[in-house]
Amino acid sequence: MGYKLLADRFKKIDSIEHLMSVAHWDEATMMPDGGAESRGQAMAQVGVLAHELITDPNVGEWIEKAKAENLSEWESSNLREIESQWRHKTSIPSDLVEATAVARAKCGHAWRSLRPANDWEGFLPLFEPLISLVRQQAQALGDGLGCDPYDALIDQFEPGQTQSSIAATFAQLKEQLPVIIEAAVEKSGRVSLPKGPFPKELQKQLGEVAMRHLGFDFNHGRLDVSHHPFCGGVPKDVRITTRYDEENFIESLMGVIHETGHARYEQNLPDEWLDQPVGKARGMGVHEGQSLLFENMVGHSPEFLSFLAPKMADTFGSSSEFDWSAGSLTPIVNRVEKSFIRTSADEVTYPMHVILRFELEQQIISGSLEVRDIPEAWDSKMQAYLGLSTKGDFRNGCMQDVHWPEGAFGYFPSYTLGAMTAAQLYEKALLDHPEIPEKLSQGDTSLLNTWLRENVWSKGSFYTVDELMTVATGAKLSSRPFIDHLKSRYL
Amino acid sequence: MGYKLLADRFKKIDSIEHLMSVAHWDEATMMPDGGAESRGQAMAQVGVLAHELITDPNVGEWIEKAKAENLSEWESSNLREIESQWRHKTSIPSDLVEATAVARAKCGHAWRSLRPANDWEGFLPLFEPLISLVRQQAQALGDGLGCDPYDALIDQFEPGQTQSSIAATFAQLKEQLPVIIEAAVEKSGRVSLPKGPFPKELQKQLGEVAMRHLGFDFNHGRLDVSHHPFCGGVPKDVRITTRYDEENFIESLMGVIHETGHARYEQNLPDEWLDQPVGKARGMGVHEGQSLLFENMVGHSPEFLSFLAPKMADTFGSSSEFDWSAGSLTPIVNRVEKSFIRTSADEVTYPMHVILRFELEQQIISGSLEVRDIPEAWDSKMQAYLGLSTKGDFRNGCMQDVHWPEGAFGYFPSYTLGAMTAAQLYEKALLDHPEIPEKLSQGDTSLLNTWLRENVWSKGSFYTVDELMTVATGAKLSSRPFIDHLKSRYL
Repeated sequence: MGYKLLADRFKKIDSIEHLMSVAHWDEATMMPDGGAESRGQAMAQVGVLAHELITDPNVGEWIEKAKAENLSEWESSNLREIESQWRHKTSIPSDLVEATAVARAKCGHAWRSLRPANDWEGFLPLFEPLISLVRQQAQALGDGLGCDPYDALIDQFEPGQTQSSIAATFAQLKEQLPVIIEAAVEKSGRVSLPKGPFPKELQKQLGEVAMRHLGFDFNHGRLDVSHHPFCGGVPKDVRITTRYDEENFIESLMGVIHETGHARYEQNLPDEWLDQPVGKARGMGVHEGQSLLFENMVGHSPEFLSFLAPKMADTFGSSSEFDWSAGSLTPIVNRVEKSFIRTSADEVTYPMHVILRFELEQQIISGSLEVRDIPEAWDSKMQAYLGLSTKGDFRNGCMQDVHWPEGAFGYFPSYTLGAMTAAQLYEKALLDHPEIPEKLSQGDTSLLNTWLRENVWSKGSFYTVDELMTVATGAKLSSRPFIDHLKSRYL
Repeated sequence: MGYKLLADRFKKIDSIEHLMSVAHWDEATMMPDGGAESRGQAMAQVGVLAHELITDPNVGEWIEKAKAENLSEWESSNLREIESQWRHKTSIPSDLVEATAVARAKCGHAWRSLRPANDWEGFLPLFEPLISLVRQQAQALGDGLGCDPYDALIDQFEPGQTQSSIAATFAQLKEQLPVIIEAAVEKSGRVSLPKGPFPKELQKQLGEVAMRHLGFDFNHGRLDVSHHPFCGGVPKDVRITTRYDEENFIESLMGVIHETGHARYEQNLPDEWLDQPVGKARGMGVHEGQSLLFENMVGHSPEFLSFLAPKMADTFGSSSEFDWSAGSLTPIVNRVEKSFIRTSADEVTYPMHVILRFELEQQIISGSLEVRDIPEAWDSKMQAYLGLSTKGDFRNGCMQDVHWPEGAFGYFPSYTLGAMTAAQLYEKALLDHPEIPEKLSQGDTSLLNTWLRENVWSKGSFYTVDELMTVATGAKLSSRPFIDHLKSRYL
């Protein structure tokens, strides 16, 4: 009886999270500014409610009962996921959850106008109290899980990983990347870009063509515009977003391809488990693995670009003189350059952006770095890793990402774990189906979609990350395939 | 302490309702079809949760305690509203609420494609089980409130009104309207309509111009498209919708003006009480009173039309030859015609549509009319009241409205109570400020907005309907000002 009660409870929680997902998407895409305060309050209240449903003392008892029950394999995995969530949530007091949610909503919303204004001083009075709350949360979570506060934050996104395991992986990248970066920058040289303007409406059409060929199911999802692109909604109704720059359609197009990778994962989670923790995506690194596989392995390949090139010519050809071919496009999308903005960074320099954030987050959460000193610390690491100065340029420095203004700490490492995941999965998919690249040149992603559905997407959280990668590829996650991929593409 | 606990509880419920409002708006405007089933399930689950928070046995105890406490006038009114909600909700068992919510979502969603297909046979298997659930709800509610089941449904929307009180008012209309209808139809004769097409984007621009001049606050709301226009969202973020017919912009424009009336009410509810029942709008009839005041008293007046006419010429003039003047427009918007569709009916025949539904609902809820016999009963009353046949034409007959497919019964009378409210409020506003019509001809609605804010909107649910109308106009709601208005405009 314990398991049944848990399943009912988590179905209820899933329904609340469904509405919160819709409201979150709405906030980013549709909501007028004046709605922010009351939306923030409502989200905070409902967040507390969901929190109370998990932390209800009965849940602990039901978990103990369920452990003694005769469960199927999927039910057992579900119980494992439920217990993990329960341990996380019971570690943080409700009033702290509520206060943090309110502060996140306020700070995150203000950031949308303060970032373009480069207004660090205006941001600080909202950001400092948020960080104070995030530190309290990390402390409480660490106490509950019996680990270091920042390890506890990482565990929310990457169960099984720690600061030291990540630092070890990142050490390999810090060692190998500088050589690849220098070589790739040199090799990149000058490219000739197609000249805009590229009207937003046409960019949207082209994005939707790409989405369709990548398998996106428009009966269960849509594409919209937001300040910071994301994949939201729910598995049966996946909402991806992009933003358009009328001078450069490629960034938005590749962003759409990226989010489509996330979306395909969500749209193919196991139908009968969607309302339970075991039916959710396996974690942030694996999620990012899907989006980066779509973006970097597929979207940046000469094969898929040779399919897209005539579509681009159809869409923009009349307004832009350009040699619409894979030969012209591939050097553009694979151009490597040391730059300020993580989200538009190439796959070679990207890990350096992540390592910077990872190292700063360790200091911010431990308290060894004060909030007001972040810009200076940022600038110093940016100089060291990419040779760029961000002095006084907050909008392209520490205010560039949505994550910190929304209080999301411990999440950045997942981007690079995701890049490693993408390389490792794609390597194995090619081993199983060497014809995949040729199919991509015809705009046919069905073989790849099928392989990913069978080996990753349909598994939800049935396996742990280590199990999933081992079953799918024969080995645990490693940086080797990612570094091999970079060397083969850029050296 | 009882009152404080109640206020906290209802704040929490308000937050859930906030997210449900957003999800409801999204469902009608944004959601792809494939998302309907899981959305319906989530809404049902969360609806049950909100229901449980009201029906929690503690709430009854807190109410009794609060009655003995020293409360302010607003708190006392809040307690009255809380008790009323509590009585309604405790009368209906949770499982019935959940089953009804699922059936409403399914039937309501299917209706969107079945109505255009005129598919009554496809609709019936979804509609019959819904009605069965609605009857059970009405029975349970009637038992709880100690009244007839249909009276109980009416009480949800119009506290204080009953079948017999409404039938008495409607009897006056049934007596007086036929003469006015015949005279108005005769007087209407042929009008020359502006020729389309009127592009949707331009219609939207014109609608937004009208909204702005009617005081709509775009920092706290927006305009979108849905199959059936409505006013949703929350007071700080009011979402109104319309639909566009490229051959006829006037219907959509007047619809937008109508929903703007609803929106102004929501946007001006008392700030400090928004999260409590006393801070909500006074009821459906009063709400409809605001929208009909905006649509019929303002939007259809020669004064406001003389302001809008040049805006229309600016918007459509180049593509349409027409004498853009109040003289040409007034006979169009005030044209009276016996027609099938309630939502596009003129203000003179509209009450006959409502009376038809009111009389059928009485029979449907009592069970004296079987669901499958509704089309025949509809046709017979339509013949009697407006001389029109709807045989085999379900889409223009009993399938025309969203209300029944979504299980909303007891609501239709509010439309005509609203028309009476609009006439009575506007009559008094003109008495206080005879210069209002002249201001309208300049597109200036500030005097009217101020009068309504002070006398109606800012009161929320502080007063009962009778009290509100008496304080605002010196008399309880009556059909006299409405009939006077129709006689003065049409005879």
